[in-house]
Amino acid sequence: MHTPAAKVSGYVVLMIVQIIFLVLFWLFVRYEKTVLPLAIDAEDAGSANEHVSKYPQFQDIQVMIFIGFGFLMTFLRKYGYSATGFTLFMAALVVQWAVLMKGFLHMEGGKISLSLESIIDADIAAAVPLISMGALLGRTTPIQLLCMSIFEVALFAANEYLALHVFSICDCGGSITVHAFGAYFGLAVALMLRPSSDQNETGKLEGASYTSDIFAMIGTTFLWVYWPSFNSVLAEGAGGERAILNTFLSLAAATVTTFVVSALVSHENKLDMVHVQNSTLAGGVAVGTVCNLLLGAHGAVLIGIIAGTVSVLGYRYLTPWMTANLRLHDTCGVHNLHGMPALISAIASAIYASMVTVGEYQSELQDIFPAMVGSNGTETKIMGGLGRNATSQAGYQLFGIAVTLLIAIGGGILTGAVLKYTNFRNLKKDEHHQDEHYWEVPAAENKEE
Amino acid sequence: MHTPAAKVSGYVVLMIVQIIFLVLFWLFVRYEKTVLPLAIDAEDAGSANEHVSKYPQFQDIQVMIFIGFGFLMTFLRKYGYSATGFTLFMAALVVQWAVLMKGFLHMEGGKISLSLESIIDADIAAAVPLISMGALLGRTTPIQLLCMSIFEVALFAANEYLALHVFSICDCGGSITVHAFGAYFGLAVALMLRPSSDQNETGKLEGASYTSDIFAMIGTTFLWVYWPSFNSVLAEGAGGERAILNTFLSLAAATVTTFVVSALVSHENKLDMVHVQNSTLAGGVAVGTVCNLLLGAHGAVLIGIIAGTVSVLGYRYLTPWMTANLRLHDTCGVHNLHGMPALISAIASAIYASMVTVGEYQSELQDIFPAMVGSNGTETKIMGGLGRNATSQAGYQLFGIAVTLLIAIGGGILTGAVLKYTNFRNLKKDEHHQDEHYWEVPAAENKEE
Amino acid sequence: MHTPAAKVSGYVVLMIVQIIFLVLFWLFVRYEKTVLPLAIDAEDAGSANEHVSKYPQFQDIQVMIFIGFGFLMTFLRKYGYSATGFTLFMAALVVQWAVLMKGFLHMEGGKISLSLESIIDADIAAAVPLISMGALLGRTTPIQLLCMSIFEVALFAANEYLALHVFSICDCGGSITVHAFGAYFGLAVALMLRPSSDQNETGKLEGASYTSDIFAMIGTTFLWVYWPSFNSVLAEGAGGERAILNTFLSLAAATVTTFVVSALVSHENKLDMVHVQNSTLAGGVAVGTVCNLLLGAHGAVLIGIIAGTVSVLGYRYLTPWMTANLRLHDTCGVHNLHGMPALISAIASAIYASMVTVGEYQSELQDIFPAMVGSNGTETKIMGGLGRNATSQAGYQLFGIAVTLLIAIGGGILTGAVLKYTNFRNLKKDEHHQDEHYWEVPAAENKEE
Repeated sequence: MHTPAAKVSGYVVLMIVQIIFLVLFWLFVRYEKTVLPLAIDAEDAGSANEHVSKYPQFQDIQVMIFIGFGFLMTFLRKYGYSATGFTLFMAALVVQWAVLMKGFLHMEGGKISLSLESIIDADIAAAVPLISMGALLGRTTPIQLLCMSIFEVALFAANEYLALHVFSICDCGGSITVHAFGAYFGLAVALMLRPSSDQNETGKLEGASYTSDIFAMIGTTFLWVYWPSFNSVLAEGAGGERAILNTFLSLAAATVTTFVVSALVSHENKLDMVHVQNSTLAGGVAVGTVCNLLLGAHGAVLIGIIAGTVSVLGYRYLTPWMTANLRLHDTCGVHNLHGMPALISAIASAIYASMVTVGEYQSELQDIFPAMVGSNGTETKIMGGLGRNATSQAGYQLFGIAVTLLIAIGGGILTGAVLKYTNFRNLKKDEHHQDEHYWEVPAAENKEE
Repeated sequence: MHTPAAKVSGYVVLMIVQIIFLVLFWLFVRYEKTVLPLAIDAEDAGSANEHVSKYPQFQDIQVMIFIGFGFLMTFLRKYGYSATGFTLFMAALVVQWAVLMKGFLHMEGGKISLSLESIIDADIAAAVPLISMGALLGRTTPIQLLCMSIFEVALFAANEYLALHVFSICDCGGSITVHAFGAYFGLAVALMLRPSSDQNETGKLEGASYTSDIFAMIGTTFLWVYWPSFNSVLAEGAGGERAILNTFLSLAAATVTTFVVSALVSHENKLDMVHVQNSTLAGGVAVGTVCNLLLGAHGAVLIGIIAGTVSVLGYRYLTPWMTANLRLHDTCGVHNLHGMPALISAIASAIYASMVTVGEYQSELQDIFPAMVGSNGTETKIMGGLGRNATSQAGYQLFGIAVTLLIAIGGGILTGAVLKYTNFRNLKKDEHHQDEHYWEVPAAENKEE
Repeated sequence: MHTPAAKVSGYVVLMIVQIIFLVLFWLFVRYEKTVLPLAIDAEDAGSANEHVSKYPQFQDIQVMIFIGFGFLMTFLRKYGYSATGFTLFMAALVVQWAVLMKGFLHMEGGKISLSLESIIDADIAAAVPLISMGALLGRTTPIQLLCMSIFEVALFAANEYLALHVFSICDCGGSITVHAFGAYFGLAVALMLRPSSDQNETGKLEGASYTSDIFAMIGTTFLWVYWPSFNSVLAEGAGGERAILNTFLSLAAATVTTFVVSALVSHENKLDMVHVQNSTLAGGVAVGTVCNLLLGAHGAVLIGIIAGTVSVLGYRYLTPWMTANLRLHDTCGVHNLHGMPALISAIASAIYASMVTVGEYQSELQDIFPAMVGSNGTETKIMGGLGRNATSQAGYQLFGIAVTLLIAIGGGILTGAVLKYTNFRNLKKDEHHQDEHYWEVPAAENKEE
């Protein structure tokens, strides 16, 4: 049943990848100037401290990536080793790759600058393949996941560069570039790897046990709590505080809504842990792109209510429909947690962008909508913006999400085809959603517990 | 057995509450000035950053509320979904309500200012009904809990205003206004909802399993670790660092004492997880009101030793007595973790207040005991304090806790009466302490695990 | 089988120890000047805030000590209460003792200064006996552990003083003074307490269950995530940011390597949770001593790859060999997670020290290698350094680890002898690795779950 030789060669390739990373770091990566010792006679003091003022937020994001994502995916009854272990494995590989890939897009003098900012960006990039992994959870080998990650992160870095630096869209919390990209890429891969039509039933291991559901709540609650850090880490000035406030309120409103809608649409009006674990977080995704804008508390709460509703309804009706009709399994329901809420966020960003005025955003326009600087007939053409007007910016927001979807789905289909039709081993239906094919599992399990 | 119609109407009412919140946010809440963009020509830089310097402490408190409280209550063997889920639900509802309620008490020009401080206050307010929930855990419907929360938080905001702004008591870590209020309010509700005398035995589900006890330790350890943030977040200047140090030392001493006393009084001198999960934290409550005072390390340690001892003895002797004689069930023992330690803190605050001199507290007197500014015959009557003397301040501290108890118990009895005698569905004895009446629970549970 | 009287007397002694601490705090410990209120007429503002700028990192370390170590050791199937509970107990005792012991080495005017720095140091000291506990896990009574801790921390403080202040070695992340010391001290105690030759087989409880392994991953992931805080908290200036970056990259590389090597050497090429839980962290230990040096990203990654490889091979081959041939049980494999990686770190520190030039480190030389200031023929003999040259510093690094090993192993043997041959109760073989001898364990366990 197992082919140890294939496994061995997969892991050997990964070791070679790690060694290639080592060589690339050696050739291209250097500490940024502020990370180097000062000249003996320089006056200094607190400037280094200032540089690491985002360290607490970085640590919050670390918890989201490694504990949040990892434990959120432990909900499957016999897939907890893989959920926590592969998350750790993938994230450790991807952060190195992301430092390199994002670095190559911003090289100076042929070298990549390494600073705290690099690893903040790397952690954010790690979220992308972890979201895709959610769609595929339990139906791929670790080698497939890791190859997917390598390709996906490269494409993510390119698409992000395009969206933020070419189209100049706003996407403070990354709902477009991170969440939509990761979700639709993963779903496209899942579509390519879908089971044959006679094997489409949901397996009995594709569900939770009482204990595994509580483990998953560790992931949910840490993601909930630290989401404001994720959304605000790249915001500047007062925009950072608004990102915190808006994200917090949107999450709170989405959470209340999730419980209500879950009870209303579920069997016997009982609450469903799948909704509680996931849809409560939809508010964080849906507010992501616009979190640093002047939404007002009511704007954030409204977005949260919409996101919670759409997400629960997606779990209740859309996911089963996709499984039954498209044979598209989405184990964690990333379409409902990341996909649709990210679309809501993109639409919201177009609406809010269409109403932006210089008078409102003042000095922050430069940070948030750099392409709009110089527009609206203001005298001060600060720093040579493109002078794009509000309607045009709104159009670019929609164009940004459209291009992102196109690249994500195209890249996902291509990746899925590679994983399916080339030499990779594919799991059989009866190997799905269980740890024991890739992990040593305690033998006495069934007797002792 | 279930009445879906009643459930549905309860959840629909909650959705209406959420929408009312949305409208109130729209009508009354505006970003504080520092959260808005600066005028283009303003000179600025780090001022916004300064404003969010408490963000890391806010995040620690978030973890305490959502993970700490949530997992601490997972110790019941079949109530883990409810413990983590209802904590999330209640906290998400309460934080919104608290922003509004506390805002109404400090409006400017008819508007509520929204800033990081608002949501720090909201998180602290969320602790109050979660403490009360601990007393009632497993014996109410979620709808009852949520209605209790709405009323309790409004009353909490009023009592806090009274204690801090009218009586001018010190209560840096909130032991009086948060812990005593939450505990005695919850106990009063529990008294009203107590079982009839022939149903008073402790049910077999009112206990832990091996796994659920370890889940609860997640809550305990996060509460332990972040408690210094809770106590210090509202302290100013050097008082903040003292709050951190005193809380840390008090917790450490309470923890050692808890283990010793637990072993000495328990059956066969074995340690009891209930004590370890809860009484270790009593040091954090007992030092709360006085945590920013000049206690000295020995003062903090002494308070911790007393708190640990009282709390364990409470669990061992007082709680069973109350269950047997008053039919007052206190599922999590909030009287031992929050109630009595808060009383210790209030008494300690009276003792320390009676010894305060201007010479000792210097410029911090204004922050800590504003009503005492101008007393003690000092020449400098700074900012028009009331010139209250030390003995008088001590009296006010005791008056503050007395009024708090009165309002909490009165409010709790009233709330309990409403929950019992109006249209709310009450759980029957055999529905207590189990998730399955409100949650979809995996069917194959007993066979598979 | 149990001797309640012996237990009682042990716990009574511990209470006396806590009271002695109280007295020592009262006699010797005072708030540091910056923690006291300012004189009324002083101009001040942000200086106090600056003092607590390390608070977020302190909290990260708190999580590592209480949640990280505690949950990492829950992997044993029936020892979860002890793992989390005794960690809490020991750490609470040790932090108090460490404030005193480290304070006695730095008294001013007969008094110990208490500030945030004191409790950061105390938390780091708490790691030492927790590492040793890992070697002994499940084979000692709590009283033995606590007595060991008291002695070990005193010796640790002395050795650390010797290494850092007398030998002037660099050890930013404490791999020499904390990890090597804790690991080899614990192994020496384990050697003294080793079973008689006819009882050497590994008990069936000396392993994990499915659930306990996932609990352990909570510990692993929090240690992983916050390790950069542990390594960087004592670094100054830009060295702090380098410590963060180097630790992060080393951990990432060690993690990828761990998965690969684990799969290659394990039975049927399946991944082993023991490796994933522990060896992934070896990168953090191995980079510890040198984390603030100018390693470059490639240096950090290379150290991580070596550490991951050595650690997995240690678990796979060396630990079973030590158990079989030396009867030296090492329950958590601290030799593979802390011992050998710390040796790697010490060797790396000698190599990097041998290449240090003033031109490279500029103003930071004073912080990192104070004994080298004034060397290399530079004109500026800043602050009277010893003018030690690079080769000589490399020698001191090796001397530092050698002396540390000597003191740790000597102290451990002595401690082990005391625990074995004096009045302490020793656990019998069939009492090993189970909670029920010291904890009240739910009775209905086997039936209900």
